[in-house]
Amino acid sequence: MNASDFRRRGKEMVDYMADYLEGIEGRQVYPDVQPGYLRPLIPATAPQEPDTFEDILQDVEKIIMPGAASPACTELETVMMDWLGKMLQLPEAFLAGEAGEGGGVIQGSASEATLVALLAARTKVTRRLQAASPGLTQGAVLEKLVAYASDQAHSSVERAGLIGGVKLKAIPSDGKFAMRASALQEALERDKAAGLIPFFVVATLGTTSCCSFDNLLEVGPICHEEDIWLHVDAAYAGSAFICPEFRHLLNGVEFADSFNFNPHKWLLVNFDCSAMWVKRRTDLTGAFKLDPVYLKHSHQGSGLITDYRHWQLPLGRRFRSLKMWFVFRMYGVKGLQAYIRKHVQLSHEFEAFVLQDPRFEVCAEVTLGLVCFRLKGSDGLNEALLERINSARKIHLVPCRLRGQFVLRFAICSRKVESGHVRLAWEHIRGLAAELLAAEEGKAEIKS
Amino acid sequence: MNASDFRRRGKEMVDYMADYLEGIEGRQVYPDVQPGYLRPLIPATAPQEPDTFEDILQDVEKIIMPGAASPACTELETVMMDWLGKMLQLPEAFLAGEAGEGGGVIQGSASEATLVALLAARTKVTRRLQAASPGLTQGAVLEKLVAYASDQAHSSVERAGLIGGVKLKAIPSDGKFAMRASALQEALERDKAAGLIPFFVVATLGTTSCCSFDNLLEVGPICHEEDIWLHVDAAYAGSAFICPEFRHLLNGVEFADSFNFNPHKWLLVNFDCSAMWVKRRTDLTGAFKLDPVYLKHSHQGSGLITDYRHWQLPLGRRFRSLKMWFVFRMYGVKGLQAYIRKHVQLSHEFEAFVLQDPRFEVCAEVTLGLVCFRLKGSDGLNEALLERINSARKIHLVPCRLRGQFVLRFAICSRKVESGHVRLAWEHIRGLAAELLAAEEGKAEIKS
Repeated sequence: MNASDFRRRGKEMVDYMADYLEGIEGRQVYPDVQPGYLRPLIPATAPQEPDTFEDILQDVEKIIMPGAASPACTELETVMMDWLGKMLQLPEAFLAGEAGEGGGVIQGSASEATLVALLAARTKVTRRLQAASPGLTQGAVLEKLVAYASDQAHSSVERAGLIGGVKLKAIPSDGKFAMRASALQEALERDKAAGLIPFFVVATLGTTSCCSFDNLLEVGPICHEEDIWLHVDAAYAGSAFICPEFRHLLNGVEFADSFNFNPHKWLLVNFDCSAMWVKRRTDLTGAFKLDPVYLKHSHQGSGLITDYRHWQLPLGRRFRSLKMWFVFRMYGVKGLQAYIRKHVQLSHEFEAFVLQDPRFEVCAEVTLGLVCFRLKGSDGLNEALLERINSARKIHLVPCRLRGQFVLRFAICSRKVESGHVRLAWEHIRGLAAELLAAEEGKAEIKS
Repeated sequence: MNASDFRRRGKEMVDYMADYLEGIEGRQVYPDVQPGYLRPLIPATAPQEPDTFEDILQDVEKIIMPGAASPACTELETVMMDWLGKMLQLPEAFLAGEAGEGGGVIQGSASEATLVALLAARTKVTRRLQAASPGLTQGAVLEKLVAYASDQAHSSVERAGLIGGVKLKAIPSDGKFAMRASALQEALERDKAAGLIPFFVVATLGTTSCCSFDNLLEVGPICHEEDIWLHVDAAYAGSAFICPEFRHLLNGVEFADSFNFNPHKWLLVNFDCSAMWVKRRTDLTGAFKLDPVYLKHSHQGSGLITDYRHWQLPLGRRFRSLKMWFVFRMYGVKGLQAYIRKHVQLSHEFEAFVLQDPRFEVCAEVTLGLVCFRLKGSDGLNEALLERINSARKIHLVPCRLRGQFVLRFAICSRKVESGHVRLAWEHIRGLAAELLAAEEGKAEIKS
């Protein structure tokens, strides 16, 4: 949608809201629809080509408004999470479908998804151990539980461990910053020998620092074998899996118990929208379910409906699936794929610039939209370069450390980024680097 | 703002957004402002009278846009939470001010606020115990920790206990559904004698079932004496405390460590916006703080800035304080007070209707916008009445149980509710009750 369409459609939406508020007394206070009403009204998969805005808006009036906030909010979410799961070719077990045991839920952030998964895993293992050894207290179990993630995993994983009251151990990643079987297996054996109980592994697809990928095809079978909950965190990279050429990066997800990525990061859905799937929804609801009278309703226990309040930390929920519905239909799957492909291509353009300049080096494999690079030389030199880049305020880079080395990160992430922007950014960086190197050389000459 | 103003202003906002997007390349990628830039640009308190929309929008361009998303998002939140705290006459210790140790943060829901408070309290007591007894494990501490809330507390409190891995005990409420000193003290003594460690009390102001109030002036000093973290949950009722005549209901909050209510419930701010204050911000940051390189920034540790990511469960944040800023300025404090007063008056009008009808009874003291009532008679009779009311779909009521009795709840909560709506609702209920009672009498006659 270009700016002039946005002006027109935006103003139509303002009128739609005003009309709604002016006519609210004519509407029913409670919907007439029955649980499950929505799925048959909506296609089973996202459209390949874009729908028109008119069609989408007509569907809002026809499909959403009769279902009001409830059950429309819940049912659209379930169906949108199925659409998105199919776009990623997630294994069937993660989809809700008509009568699946799995399904998706929108969380606010990957941090919350990881925490919810860890808490569900914690409840599950605690119940299993207490069933085997009646009298075993929760405190005694907690004391022995260990979760694992690669040393490249996001800080939110460590935080989930802190909140859950369990140990979290970092598995040393390999030369490509990936968690591999051998290192994980070693940690598991050592901890089991010490009487600890491994119960939860987070595998990251697309780490924050350098967009590396844990080896799911190695890690997955180990978790399966050891009866350890495997959570796959693909917060950033997950969006790319809608392209067949990147889908192989998700291979092994069939071993996972839960999977999460953030459409708000790279799939054009506004913040917040973090998509989480589980294979067994009862694992989540079992961990959180409480049913006071004021939250009871007549469809409870019918198996017909999904109570998302048992799937998440807050009780209240916003109608976030509307954002997904609009975006998926306005772009179509092909439009979203084209968007991802363009970003990946632009990051390879930047990579090529870096590789052509012998003063620079690329520090990690470029797979998606992130290029880790640095000037050949000291950390101090690269810190000075970053300082010059960010002070100039034409572009903004966020650094990381890889194997202790200070590294710059060039991330393609704007909706409107073009090849020309990447070229300008590179010329800008190269110019600042040249100034910096000249200044350093000057200093060196004065010293000598 | 009436509907025609909304149409005009809404369309202006659409143009504002489109202009922004069209001109985005002309804007800086990083703001020029220094930490703390925002507070001096904004009054120290909310306006008493409404501001004009023009003034607010001009301030967005002048005050917010130069500070972009960061630091404007953080700094406006801190200042808005101070505004709101002052509106409630919260003790100074809860305000951030220029150099306070306390401060406010917007959470998504009261559930999250309770959980965050419980986790902070858990960390604090664990560190204290471990400092006194080195070698004491976290598991051993967790095993002994006990949290408390009234038997009328919201289910989210129990859930926070589940997630935090600690026991939660329900304190029997008194005849007015309030937690009192004696019952709490009794539980504390019993548990301490059994070797347990009381560490956290949730006092509720305005319970979900019947809007009862725990006795803060009794409970507060006990918590203070026993070094127990006191969290005050006023999710619904909190908004009323901006009216001087209801502020006494908050007396005793000076004993609390954390306080929370939901402006999204009754202060005209859209969902979600849950306002939480703490007296010592380091209690929160101490519980969650992790600092990976990619989240480091140059102002860290300067004491100048607030890193809200350490105050909450998710990492990412939305710019929710904008909603508060707009609402507080468009209504003014007086406008918001008038809104609260009107709702309370309407609930008393409904209460008067119920009291005038000898077939009905009021089941709990009416303090704010909720009336708990029932037909004198069996639970079955009242369940049948509720069924008739909700099936008719003219109004919708959510029931509760008080001392085991099935009770109907009439809640005043629409922005546009008027005296006429309340009268219509009552006549509707009375009509359905008459039909029901006649049908029951008919059945009784047939039986006899």
